[in-house]
Amino acid sequence: MSSSERQLHLNAFVMSVGHHEAAWRLPESDPYADLDVEHFKNIARTAERGKLDSLFLADGPVLWDQVGRRPSGVLEPTLLLTALAGATERIGLIATASTTYNEPYNLARRFASLDIISGGRAGWNIVTTAGLDAARNFNLDELPAHKERYERAAEFVDVSLKLWDSWADDVVLADKESGIWGDDAKIYPAAHQGRFYKVAGALNVPRSAQGHPVLVQAGSSENGRDFAARYAEAVFTAHQTLADAQEFYDDLKRRAVEYGRDPNHIKILPGIVPIIGSSEEAAREREAELNRLIRPEFALPQLAGLLGVSPEELRLDAPLPDSLPEEEAIEGAKSRRTLVVNLGRRENLTVREIIARLGGGRGHLTFAGTPVQVADQIELWFTSGAADGFNIMPPVLPSGLTDFVDQVVPILQDRGLFRTEYTGRTLREHYGLPRPANRNVGSLQTAV
Amino acid sequence: MSSSERQLHLNAFVMSVGHHEAAWRLPESDPYADLDVEHFKNIARTAERGKLDSLFLADGPVLWDQVGRRPSGVLEPTLLLTALAGATERIGLIATASTTYNEPYNLARRFASLDIISGGRAGWNIVTTAGLDAARNFNLDELPAHKERYERAAEFVDVSLKLWDSWADDVVLADKESGIWGDDAKIYPAAHQGRFYKVAGALNVPRSAQGHPVLVQAGSSENGRDFAARYAEAVFTAHQTLADAQEFYDDLKRRAVEYGRDPNHIKILPGIVPIIGSSEEAAREREAELNRLIRPEFALPQLAGLLGVSPEELRLDAPLPDSLPEEEAIEGAKSRRTLVVNLGRRENLTVREIIARLGGGRGHLTFAGTPVQVADQIELWFTSGAADGFNIMPPVLPSGLTDFVDQVVPILQDRGLFRTEYTGRTLREHYGLPRPANRNVGSLQTAV
Repeated sequence: MSSSERQLHLNAFVMSVGHHEAAWRLPESDPYADLDVEHFKNIARTAERGKLDSLFLADGPVLWDQVGRRPSGVLEPTLLLTALAGATERIGLIATASTTYNEPYNLARRFASLDIISGGRAGWNIVTTAGLDAARNFNLDELPAHKERYERAAEFVDVSLKLWDSWADDVVLADKESGIWGDDAKIYPAAHQGRFYKVAGALNVPRSAQGHPVLVQAGSSENGRDFAARYAEAVFTAHQTLADAQEFYDDLKRRAVEYGRDPNHIKILPGIVPIIGSSEEAAREREAELNRLIRPEFALPQLAGLLGVSPEELRLDAPLPDSLPEEEAIEGAKSRRTLVVNLGRRENLTVREIIARLGGGRGHLTFAGTPVQVADQIELWFTSGAADGFNIMPPVLPSGLTDFVDQVVPILQDRGLFRTEYTGRTLREHYGLPRPANRNVGSLQTAV
Repeated sequence: MSSSERQLHLNAFVMSVGHHEAAWRLPESDPYADLDVEHFKNIARTAERGKLDSLFLADGPVLWDQVGRRPSGVLEPTLLLTALAGATERIGLIATASTTYNEPYNLARRFASLDIISGGRAGWNIVTTAGLDAARNFNLDELPAHKERYERAAEFVDVSLKLWDSWADDVVLADKESGIWGDDAKIYPAAHQGRFYKVAGALNVPRSAQGHPVLVQAGSSENGRDFAARYAEAVFTAHQTLADAQEFYDDLKRRAVEYGRDPNHIKILPGIVPIIGSSEEAAREREAELNRLIRPEFALPQLAGLLGVSPEELRLDAPLPDSLPEEEAIEGAKSRRTLVVNLGRRENLTVREIIARLGGGRGHLTFAGTPVQVADQIELWFTSGAADGFNIMPPVLPSGLTDFVDQVVPILQDRGLFRTEYTGRTLREHYGLPRPANRNVGSLQTAV
């Protein structure tokens, strides 16, 4: 057992009955679990038993895909995480929410409420929401351009930070004798007037145990990297190769420094879909079993949309067409498009094979192996300048998380790479991030 | 013990440490409880022990008043009720949310999520949100006019109903063998194009055990009554006299019938602030103690705002000015303004006395007496065509609710006016409302 100063951060990225799109077809899976709070409570308790930093829910304000394909109910994540807060004590709770389709006052307040209800365990995965279908649920006929979505996101976060700082930490006097509950001189209205938003007042929720929710980001385009470097305290990202992950890691840390930030205060967590078996062969057979259960006709239109082509231009048993729109021409999920194109070209895969490779992780690295092999892979990226930890995406739930917690986490703990007990109570403490000072008050307020 | 076919409906309207603005100053009160989920869980369990129909949280996207006055943190109610859903099994959970400052897709989805998480116990108190301060938190310089707020609210509810019906009840096939999870032919996109909203797609949350959340409304202006008659399944209202309550009750039932509705499917629940004592004298002393703890300088600006005058026009120890703006000139809470003016004129109260009378219930009836007297008052209104039940507003929490549940509820049960056990699981079942058919599918779907 070796020991290391630098510690891994592990986040459980949880979705329905697992990230593999065919997971629901396995005999073990409950096909109604996407709407069952007990299913998610069970998962949250398992992740907490594994001492993981956090639990993460993706989201979009739209019915994804066809309901034929897989379980399609998605409970709103700030609510679902509130339910999970009551079933857990320590683990961080990160919800995705869109800056394009929310109002800052409402969303900042919901995250502040989750942060207080959970005792300082909330995180916000800030997304700009790609896709015309979502835009059409919000009075729009067209998706706002990628660049404008990010400009709006930046102002949205600026407003949110003002609202989260609108109460000094010591507003409340609770002076029953004189009848003064709080000190109105320590309330700082947002007084924001910007290009996209005007928000005058103070929030009606005070600061939390961790100051404000941890800011998380997951876009890897040029606009996305710049945004992450400015604001993100944790970054979820997708890479198929160590070299790509290293490039991203170096680039993002460098950009954060250029913004005057401490590079240790932006944690980079690539996604990994671990398919765990008692032998390498058993793990590969499990992966093959899942891929055999995919119905590619459901995935084909989604792949075409990602690539910016019509479904008729793709043939299941042929490679990708030679000519595809460039990333610059895509207004949706830019970096994911490039990842998929590079994967198909590099390994000369057919469309059917690409769909199988995406079926598990939608672009995130799928890794099938024994618990030791999974731990080796995690350690390699962690010690090679590619990751501060991982976004663990179990292909099947709950079993894929239970296997990871019971079989991989103990190996990482034995190697001194991962905590054996929580040392803090807030998500910031788990991630090793300082409690932010209230910018209206100054550094005297900076507790840790 | 008599028995009655018609049963009372009782809702616990819960706010901080109680509805009386000075409740937090009592020795028994925890002045930090407004942000303590355990405080609210304790209250919710007490209400459920009393077999109450529902628990209700008011809300506004704004910091109310000065923080000097009283506890000012307000956790976002759909989140707080999600936390309470996990601490209870039967009681209905009603959250207030604004149609003026939300997007229909987001809000309909949050309520659908709460409804599923709670097993069909959700209700939505639909408000249009009066007040310039709220408007200025949402990009506006002026409060939208009263009439336009209600027109927007009507379309907002129409869109929400379309979204809640966008899944037939039998979408999910969960056919693992063929790999078909749901039947896409049973998904009905909202396809809404109206004056205020365009919402194209289907919700990503299916129908709940009760079809969709119960629609609640609390405005009593002309616009508010019309809106309630069209949409509301329960109405929270404020009256100081039996005659006013009877007029409102008759008027609203008649309007509902004119809209082709069954008048039994709109439950009218006036607010009551019960101040319970072992003797009438003890109850009156409790009321006086609470009123002595009010600091009127905090309440004066709020009263002036309600009346549409400047604070300088009011003098604490004088009656209301002879000349005040008419209800028609008010764009805020119209009916509450008229109630307060009538109260002051009818009883020739000074401004200080009006503030004391509003300090407990903000216009709702405050009733101090023994448990039998409180039960008598409830029975009188219930049997005199003034109420289908009551919105119970404890002046102090948790003690005011505990007293009501332990001392008043058993009397109402002995009289055969109130259930001794829950007979249903959903809020609709508690209120005696049918499960709505999916309007995309037709009456074949009408269960219950």
